[in-house]
Amino acid sequence: MAKVKIEQMKERVSRIFKKAGFSDDHADVITEVLTDTELKGLKTHGYLRVSRYVNCVRGGGINPAGEMKILNDLPSLAHIDAAGVHGIVASYTAMKMAIEKAKNTGVGVVSVRGSRHFGAAGYYTAMCADENMLGISMSNGNAMIAATGSREINIGNNPMSYAAPAGKYGTILYDIAMSVGSDMKIMEMKRKGQSVPDGWMIDGEGRPSNNPNDYLNGGVLLPFGGYKGYGLALMVECFGAALSGASMTREASAWCSGADDTRDVGQFFMAIDISRFEEVARYNKRVETMIDELKASKLAQGFDRIYYPGEKELVLRAERLASGELEVDDATLATIAETEKELGI
Amino acid sequence: MAKVKIEQMKERVSRIFKKAGFSDDHADVITEVLTDTELKGLKTHGYLRVSRYVNCVRGGGINPAGEMKILNDLPSLAHIDAAGVHGIVASYTAMKMAIEKAKNTGVGVVSVRGSRHFGAAGYYTAMCADENMLGISMSNGNAMIAATGSREINIGNNPMSYAAPAGKYGTILYDIAMSVGSDMKIMEMKRKGQSVPDGWMIDGEGRPSNNPNDYLNGGVLLPFGGYKGYGLALMVECFGAALSGASMTREASAWCSGADDTRDVGQFFMAIDISRFEEVARYNKRVETMIDELKASKLAQGFDRIYYPGEKELVLRAERLASGELEVDDATLATIAETEKELGI
Repeated sequence: MAKVKIEQMKERVSRIFKKAGFSDDHADVITEVLTDTELKGLKTHGYLRVSRYVNCVRGGGINPAGEMKILNDLPSLAHIDAAGVHGIVASYTAMKMAIEKAKNTGVGVVSVRGSRHFGAAGYYTAMCADENMLGISMSNGNAMIAATGSREINIGNNPMSYAAPAGKYGTILYDIAMSVGSDMKIMEMKRKGQSVPDGWMIDGEGRPSNNPNDYLNGGVLLPFGGYKGYGLALMVECFGAALSGASMTREASAWCSGADDTRDVGQFFMAIDISRFEEVARYNKRVETMIDELKASKLAQGFDRIYYPGEKELVLRAERLASGELEVDDATLATIAETEKELGI
Repeated sequence: MAKVKIEQMKERVSRIFKKAGFSDDHADVITEVLTDTELKGLKTHGYLRVSRYVNCVRGGGINPAGEMKILNDLPSLAHIDAAGVHGIVASYTAMKMAIEKAKNTGVGVVSVRGSRHFGAAGYYTAMCADENMLGISMSNGNAMIAATGSREINIGNNPMSYAAPAGKYGTILYDIAMSVGSDMKIMEMKRKGQSVPDGWMIDGEGRPSNNPNDYLNGGVLLPFGGYKGYGLALMVECFGAALSGASMTREASAWCSGADDTRDVGQFFMAIDISRFEEVARYNKRVETMIDELKASKLAQGFDRIYYPGEKELVLRAERLASGELEVDDATLATIAETEKELGI
């Protein structure tokens, strides 16, 4: 872990993306979103992704300076073909459009196909909350989890986020994926010789398992909350991919491997202008009071505090922004240095 | 359990509601929604509710022939004060409006306050799927579950539904509440001397418990999937109640006790016209293929089939509609007979 200056890291990352072929606009947006995500402590979706994104450009899977095509544009909705630009660029642009439409008409829905990995779902919904809007974002992704009752890899571990302004608390920022636990954590448990918790996975024969080795031998991640999580994962397939015309379930790939690879992912963005319904100050005061009351509750065993969704991440980001510094994992810094070297920076 | 003719049951129920003071329009809508719900086998939200709804009218908590007020009406959104009419009437009307707006502009969002218990969330989203639209519905309700980390009753067991057309499969109809298990099932376990499964509840001291008696002594239901379910429950508070201006969390009541009780619940409805994005036939074919593939998967241990969300309910309803008959619980029929007697029918 090394302490680094935020501004310096942003300059480094932005330089890498520009050198890798991204247009200035695209590089700046991706850098901004990755930095925000890293500041929130969501390391798996932060600077760790820099080298992989650069590799995608090299392989032809991301068009670093392409133009998205608008397929339909109405006052309250748009349908976009991202045409293989970076998923973060497509998503940022789409949510900007949704917010603009919501300013004009009260609600904006933007559906995207031809897209790629969109990073942290919560970045885009937080854009809505900052404008006193409610936001929803979703993306399908590479198949990773089993349907309830199946022992095969069926559906993406599809991210979904919503955000709501929350008065003095800033933003309720809900951002989840659909599995109970992640493959990365199972790999870590394997390295450390630990057992996988109950309910995370089944083995290749479809039996519950706590052995991380079973995951590598045909095991599958399970959706959280049983059929309730399975259903939410399908919701994202319908709203994100079936609606937009993007690849679905096993056909989907957020990490398109080259220019002749026609797989893609789809995304869904929605913004709703609170002021068309409620006075914004009253809305904020009421959500603030709700959180005050939640936090004042007596604690359950094993807890020392009650959080609202996104609180830990937003507090960490605020602390880091105030200090101008953040800690980045050595392994992440090593991949960044390696990428710089490859690009001759 | 008694086998009854669907049409006869509808007539009986409709007569009860009309005799109880509901306007013909209101009575017909409530009867239609309760019948559809009973046909799907969702007994807790079907005919079992008839007597309770009638009691609400008697107590003054539901206005059986009131008029809703439109607070804002724009091409893609509306804000409605249900003014204490039955929640099913308010919700049916609101989703009809959302669908009409989606026909005109591609998307419709309708937010409702001043509402009451809205029955099964999935009725309204299925209305969207029948029009080749995607649908979302939500309602907050009386506080019943704990926030993650709390041992108090904090948030409603807020229902949420989405639906998507699914080609030959009809509709993907996802309809959930936010707790792992229900209070009614815990009561049943108590009667049968059974243990409550792990993860359903904590006792009054905030400790995990499997003893149904602990539920009656200050225990609380837990959200499904831990913080992921907790966050979804808060989403419904924000989209359903904070946006509309309805009562929130502990202030909310779906069973308003009288005319001077100012508590209410809020609802959120959204419809999205698929044809503005994708050719409907292509959309349906792709979702159908997705379900075909899910169903063809190898089975996990303990399962004999893979279902899509809502499948069991929709198949049961189709069978019952084809036969013209359904089975109704004796206890439910007894409450209906009792209500008829009270009303002098």
